[in-house]
Amino acid sequence: MRMVDIIEKKRDGHELSKEEIYFVVKDYTKGEIPDYQMSALAMAIYFKDMTTTERVHLTMAMVESGDQIDLSDINGIKVDKHSTGGVGDTTTLILAPLVAAVGVPVAKMSGRGLGHTGGTIDKLESIDGFKVEIDSETFNRLVNENKIAVVGQSGNLTPADKKLYGLRDVTATVNSIPLIASSIMSKKIASGADAIVLDVKTGSGAFMKDLEEAKALAEAMVQIGKGSGRNTIAVISDMSQPLGFAIGNALEVKEAIDTLKGEGPADLHELCLTLGSQMVYLSGVASSIEEGRTMLEEAITTGKALETFKTFISAQGGDASVVDNPTKLPTAAYTFEIEAKEDGYVSEIVADEIGIAASILGAGRTTKESTIDLAVGLVLNKKVGDKVHKGESLVTVYSNHESVASVVERIDRSYHIVKNKVESKPLVYDIIYG
Amino acid sequence: MRMVDIIEKKRDGHELSKEEIYFVVKDYTKGEIPDYQMSALAMAIYFKDMTTTERVHLTMAMVESGDQIDLSDINGIKVDKHSTGGVGDTTTLILAPLVAAVGVPVAKMSGRGLGHTGGTIDKLESIDGFKVEIDSETFNRLVNENKIAVVGQSGNLTPADKKLYGLRDVTATVNSIPLIASSIMSKKIASGADAIVLDVKTGSGAFMKDLEEAKALAEAMVQIGKGSGRNTIAVISDMSQPLGFAIGNALEVKEAIDTLKGEGPADLHELCLTLGSQMVYLSGVASSIEEGRTMLEEAITTGKALETFKTFISAQGGDASVVDNPTKLPTAAYTFEIEAKEDGYVSEIVADEIGIAASILGAGRTTKESTIDLAVGLVLNKKVGDKVHKGESLVTVYSNHESVASVVERIDRSYHIVKNKVESKPLVYDIIYG
Repeated sequence: MRMVDIIEKKRDGHELSKEEIYFVVKDYTKGEIPDYQMSALAMAIYFKDMTTTERVHLTMAMVESGDQIDLSDINGIKVDKHSTGGVGDTTTLILAPLVAAVGVPVAKMSGRGLGHTGGTIDKLESIDGFKVEIDSETFNRLVNENKIAVVGQSGNLTPADKKLYGLRDVTATVNSIPLIASSIMSKKIASGADAIVLDVKTGSGAFMKDLEEAKALAEAMVQIGKGSGRNTIAVISDMSQPLGFAIGNALEVKEAIDTLKGEGPADLHELCLTLGSQMVYLSGVASSIEEGRTMLEEAITTGKALETFKTFISAQGGDASVVDNPTKLPTAAYTFEIEAKEDGYVSEIVADEIGIAASILGAGRTTKESTIDLAVGLVLNKKVGDKVHKGESLVTVYSNHESVASVVERIDRSYHIVKNKVESKPLVYDIIYG
Repeated sequence: MRMVDIIEKKRDGHELSKEEIYFVVKDYTKGEIPDYQMSALAMAIYFKDMTTTERVHLTMAMVESGDQIDLSDINGIKVDKHSTGGVGDTTTLILAPLVAAVGVPVAKMSGRGLGHTGGTIDKLESIDGFKVEIDSETFNRLVNENKIAVVGQSGNLTPADKKLYGLRDVTATVNSIPLIASSIMSKKIASGADAIVLDVKTGSGAFMKDLEEAKALAEAMVQIGKGSGRNTIAVISDMSQPLGFAIGNALEVKEAIDTLKGEGPADLHELCLTLGSQMVYLSGVASSIEEGRTMLEEAITTGKALETFKTFISAQGGDASVVDNPTKLPTAAYTFEIEAKEDGYVSEIVADEIGIAASILGAGRTTKESTIDLAVGLVLNKKVGDKVHKGESLVTVYSNHESVASVVERIDRSYHIVKNKVESKPLVYDIIYG
């Protein structure tokens, strides 16, 4: 088998065979296929796409390129959730204890990642004593006992994907549905998921700005799930403005606690119920999505969800008293209010700008070596559709620096206020089933 | 300027600027742009093409990537000819002395190349004593005195093209009109041509099998010529069967001598007059193509063309008596006749198969290190449209080996004989002017 023939075949729009795809992934991972051939193939895929069969083979070849997490010692159907990312996305922190509270096993492996704020692992570390490095035996035991544990990423998962992603990043081949879909799905499958709920974000703050593109990606991933024997559901949700109110690590933990109490922002609450009910259904704990939703609503009102969160924190060495006393979370030295300059209605909050403002405060990482400031961030006091009066606070800034001029400038630029009443966008655009 | 942005721009179908194209070519040649980005760009160009302006910039950037031959000491307009290659293409050997005989300066730089037979340089070396390594001063003087000299390639011409071609070869990006056209034109321009006549072959034995593709390539090169101030004309000629009768080095020299005498194969004779008359016209020696043709016909009938060939051979140290006594050329030890197995008409001679048969005999190089056997080759006794009787010779094989079974098999496979009379294809399909 020669790589040049495989590139030509894809270039001419033909379907690659399973053998060809496995050859490419295996030999590329080993370094036997050079980057310059792989980038040419990636560009050919960009233009000529891949069939569902090819996408499944590519995903599974990447899964098999490295270690695979074995969750077979954990009872029940392990449902994982993945978000394509946005600004103020606190859903994992809420969903994990929420679905665990109704009996869904949550065996979550999570990364630190780069972005406007830290990953789930960073956020959890804002709770005093919380340990994310636990061995797999303890991890499995905790999930079986409490239905929930979260561990930092370890092992050599999907090395083919890591290598290919690095190459795509510098060859203008990132934005290809089959390559994005197989990258995401391979990581979820290698992490041991039996079933997957995807939160595909769309709008100005999302990777997929365009709704049709987001739908195509969601459809692609659901089909890969189907083809690889993992029940998969994708929710297409709005990221035209930040989700919830809080952007920042400790601030998001506080918001998660509020939401588990039933006192969180309406959009975040609703999205967690939507995603959560799919997870409960896929795990087999509920026999329908509606039943799943009812169970989750009860878990919130009865306090079971909050209780599960406490148990989870304690089990991993954390101080669970933060749940009742969130002032124990890291606190920023300074707060500033960004005031509205005119009367009117909020018509737009450019999510990317808000994300960058949080980054500037120190809430996120720009390189793997960056240190995160867990205390800092933003809380949005007004969201799209809200009425505002001149002088009212739009955003509260939590900072450890006295000067926040560049942050204020970003926030001013991101908020658009108009005279007439505006409708906010739908939160969920579509749900795609396999 | 970042290469990834340039790849993305081309991927999205936008026109690259002169600065961007020069940046790519310059930094790629220096090794500052890695192969994996260049191959992604080549694939994007394959799909999104380049405008004429981009093609001109790419060509000139490659010209300027290395040495450029200075022919300004040679009087007159230097017209170069280039063929896209085929089987039995003896035109350069004939055209060089033919147009020189009427006063067109022929300052030819020629390569050895890989292929079914050697390059022009190899063919000339089948003449005893002929030297192809002459210094530039002697070269210029010979062209001024005799209107003709041929020298082997030297210097570092178009290194960007060499490097890019090597990459395209292994990334399935060879077959792209803008990349082929700029590659050919950059080499001609770097070699010092003021004007260029292109012989673009089409048919089963050509690189461009399809007439429309050949036309597109011809048009592309003529436009690049126009855009870079080099008058360029392209002739689209048939390569559905081998050109002329001879395929082999000394055999082609003999055929060139015959054609210069006016006794060559009809198709080769006609193509030389067609290409030659364009050259005479572009050089300004004739005021019209028709006048150029008349001048060339006279040069053949008066013996001036043959005389120029002799002068040329002597001037470069060769034994010019081969012209009157071609038995002095290298001769193969064995000849075999391939006989027709049935009565009928030749409907097809698969040129590629004939070329491979010549290669097997040793007439060509498969790697740069291969040694060529100048004596061996094939002479076609029947061409498409010819009537044949069972037992008549189709092909004479000239070999230095006693066993030619695999050669015979190839030739049998290439000749198709049918019962009914067949028309041969036109020799010249089209001529494209700038």
